[in-house]
Amino acid sequence: MPSTPSAQYSLTLRVEIDERPGMLGKVASAIGDAGGTIGAIDLVQIDPGHTIRDITVATGDAADWPRLTGAVDAIAGASVLDTTDRTFLLHVGGKIELRNKNPLKSRDDLSMAYTPGVARVSTAIHEDPDKAFQYTIKRNAVAVVSDGTAVLGLGDIGPRAAMPVMEGKAMLFKEFAGIDAFPICLDTKEPDEIVRTVRAISPTFGGVNLEDISAPRCFEIEERLKTELDIPVFHDDQHGTAVVVMAALLNSLELTGHELSDIGIVIWGMGAAGVAVARILLEAGARHIIGVDSRGALHAERSDYLDGTMHPTKRWLASITNDEHRSGGPEEVMEDANLFVGVSGARAITASALDRMGRDPIVFAMANPTPEVLPEEAARYARIVATGRSDYPNQINNVLCFPGIFRGALDVRAREISEPMKMAAARAIAAIVSSNELREDYIIPSVFNREVVAAVAGAVAQEARDSGLAAAGAEIGFAHTEEFGVIPGR
Amino acid sequence: MPSTPSAQYSLTLRVEIDERPGMLGKVASAIGDAGGTIGAIDLVQIDPGHTIRDITVATGDAADWPRLTGAVDAIAGASVLDTTDRTFLLHVGGKIELRNKNPLKSRDDLSMAYTPGVARVSTAIHEDPDKAFQYTIKRNAVAVVSDGTAVLGLGDIGPRAAMPVMEGKAMLFKEFAGIDAFPICLDTKEPDEIVRTVRAISPTFGGVNLEDISAPRCFEIEERLKTELDIPVFHDDQHGTAVVVMAALLNSLELTGHELSDIGIVIWGMGAAGVAVARILLEAGARHIIGVDSRGALHAERSDYLDGTMHPTKRWLASITNDEHRSGGPEEVMEDANLFVGVSGARAITASALDRMGRDPIVFAMANPTPEVLPEEAARYARIVATGRSDYPNQINNVLCFPGIFRGALDVRAREISEPMKMAAARAIAAIVSSNELREDYIIPSVFNREVVAAVAGAVAQEARDSGLAAAGAEIGFAHTEEFGVIPGR
Repeated sequence: MPSTPSAQYSLTLRVEIDERPGMLGKVASAIGDAGGTIGAIDLVQIDPGHTIRDITVATGDAADWPRLTGAVDAIAGASVLDTTDRTFLLHVGGKIELRNKNPLKSRDDLSMAYTPGVARVSTAIHEDPDKAFQYTIKRNAVAVVSDGTAVLGLGDIGPRAAMPVMEGKAMLFKEFAGIDAFPICLDTKEPDEIVRTVRAISPTFGGVNLEDISAPRCFEIEERLKTELDIPVFHDDQHGTAVVVMAALLNSLELTGHELSDIGIVIWGMGAAGVAVARILLEAGARHIIGVDSRGALHAERSDYLDGTMHPTKRWLASITNDEHRSGGPEEVMEDANLFVGVSGARAITASALDRMGRDPIVFAMANPTPEVLPEEAARYARIVATGRSDYPNQINNVLCFPGIFRGALDVRAREISEPMKMAAARAIAAIVSSNELREDYIIPSVFNREVVAAVAGAVAQEARDSGLAAAGAEIGFAHTEEFGVIPGR
Repeated sequence: MPSTPSAQYSLTLRVEIDERPGMLGKVASAIGDAGGTIGAIDLVQIDPGHTIRDITVATGDAADWPRLTGAVDAIAGASVLDTTDRTFLLHVGGKIELRNKNPLKSRDDLSMAYTPGVARVSTAIHEDPDKAFQYTIKRNAVAVVSDGTAVLGLGDIGPRAAMPVMEGKAMLFKEFAGIDAFPICLDTKEPDEIVRTVRAISPTFGGVNLEDISAPRCFEIEERLKTELDIPVFHDDQHGTAVVVMAALLNSLELTGHELSDIGIVIWGMGAAGVAVARILLEAGARHIIGVDSRGALHAERSDYLDGTMHPTKRWLASITNDEHRSGGPEEVMEDANLFVGVSGARAITASALDRMGRDPIVFAMANPTPEVLPEEAARYARIVATGRSDYPNQINNVLCFPGIFRGALDVRAREISEPMKMAAARAIAAIVSSNELREDYIIPSVFNREVVAAVAGAVAQEARDSGLAAAGAEIGFAHTEEFGVIPGR
């Protein structure tokens, strides 16, 4: 079965076409027959007897491309001159750049933005280091830090190969929340060295977003950095996912009428995301959770628990969940559960296993790009199905969380992103879908819903203020201080 | 003596002025009498009976401001409502920001710049890590790294207070050479830790510019990073200064007709800049150099040389210069010298000492903001005088070097910035001043001469190619590779 054409496999064909009636139609038909979906058609050049056109085509897979160009070439009077992979083209030279906020065209500009004028600003910060939040990029700068060990579904591909993903993340920070995020890809996998490095570069930044660092190393790295730094540290793969799952669940529970404390929950996959989802659900009052890793359900009588070889993070979870010590794989422990959360791999369960779930089954199958169970198959058994994909309803995507949560934390200069701040974010995301809009295939807002960031940022900032985590006197925007306004009160 | 009004002490006064003939003139006169130079006058508001105007005033010192506002307030019918320090205002929120090169407005945008499309780009880089130079910001990204220990003339003011300077440096990189430089201010002063940190973050960057790190630590840090990294590492305080001094000297020698190998040279100040100036002069063929530090002239019979306490870098210099073991301070060893290079402190020599110099004295007095000797005083004794200041002729400023030298190195993906590349930069800067333009008060181009960067970059890139330091196949611009153009040669 050919895949659905998508922009990620978008190709521009430069085609020379003889100038005869019906020729462009023939080319378009050939492309359509070969499985391509035509987007733009641009005229490049008109020569005597023929025209040159750029035809942008979405396809299902790069493997389709030779067939596509072959189909065009097979038409008498048409030939492909060149092709361009639009995804790679978009990446040439990188996706982000620096910009000067003010011009630097004259000696006067230079004497204010650089020497000698800058010395007065540096002196003011030296006298009161807090002023770095007022007069430098610190207030709005986030480091997107990865060691490249768990990049998307690609695994340990190294820091250089992680860069396009971290640049993409930086783009999302900017586009959705106006935050200046900068990718920092690390040439080390040692937790000690990662902690030391991030601590060393932290004066530049107002926050740290950890990304695509493999479990269980990510738990220790985040914990240590949270302790050692005075700016928020947030591992998005853990907490971003957890917050959005929580938001989707809040709305699902409103639909089904269940209480979080009553439902049975199976979490399949105990990596960074799975552990964090378990943690936020426990914090919110869930009482019947079973976590499942590749060796089966976690519990306090499993052999690796008893012999002490289980990782401390899982050990903690095993000790406080699955009191009945149910064992087996995800399909076995799914019996009577109301919520299945998949953060494992492609088609990791069979749809029919969902039939064993309890009343009003909720299935969040979030493996990317192929979910644990396809929504069209799960639909027969589950009342609510969500995935990580944009081409099905109910997309559970971290983009709903991290821009707003950092925007809120930076706005009030919160020194950390606490559990209550995460819950505030989840509630704010859930509340975007009003009660009268809420239905089984709309439990979570679209990633392009522009209300989300402001709602999340506001709720997170308010929670930080209420719980004393905001900096004294920090307000949204910048203060009119004694230097900037020289004679206050006039 | 009041200082010359300058933009660095620029103030905007918001003044309410009674609507009567001659009032604005009175206010302007009062400001002028108080030592202010009026720039723009903007109308903010017209009310019955009076107007509110913003008057931008350059002054000689912030200490003048109360006098200035007092003078306006003293006029019947005028009063200052508010004042704004324009240098601090320019710094609010920082001076640089990130920008997305492409929009991120639709799912199609997202699927190419981020998931799932980005996975193909990451995979391509994983298979060939060199492609990071093609598909990420690495090719054009420079880390501006400082530990804040030797910031301007302010000393060890720490990493947060160093940020405005590093942001200013990043602005210069962008404005002059289109390079995306990002400030990294380090919360450590340990050379080991600095080396480790910069190495750890290096996958993101195509080059490292070290800045304002105190001597002698800077020597070891730079040497180790040059050895350990495969991208160029350049300590601008050392080599930027050395290159521009070399450029100024090449043109000075053309004017005086001396040979570098014949002239006597005194370098006063053996910090980062002084040592680097000595090194480039030696490389270029100078044979009669005396370096002077706070304990006097360096030579191989000085007590700290003999007892082994002299720092290795100075020790190296002492062992190959000043064969006659001349001792004493800068004024004592200046006897018969033809070139005096000052990289020490304000008014560190008396002008009359220059009278002892040999034929056609050349004086580069580069202490900032106040030179070792003021040009108006030195002029009586010296044929050529240069300083680091923009308000005298012959400004020796690193801005002439670092944007072009990095532009050239990045364009050909040079793995280092070698001594011959630095000399190529110096020659290119010197050559901007043509022989028929050359005169005692024009030995070096203006920092705003836009020819400089292209000339330096071209010369540096050519030297890298000639000496085998350029990456194989690296060209200016980006290659049309197999992914980007899918079917090559069609």
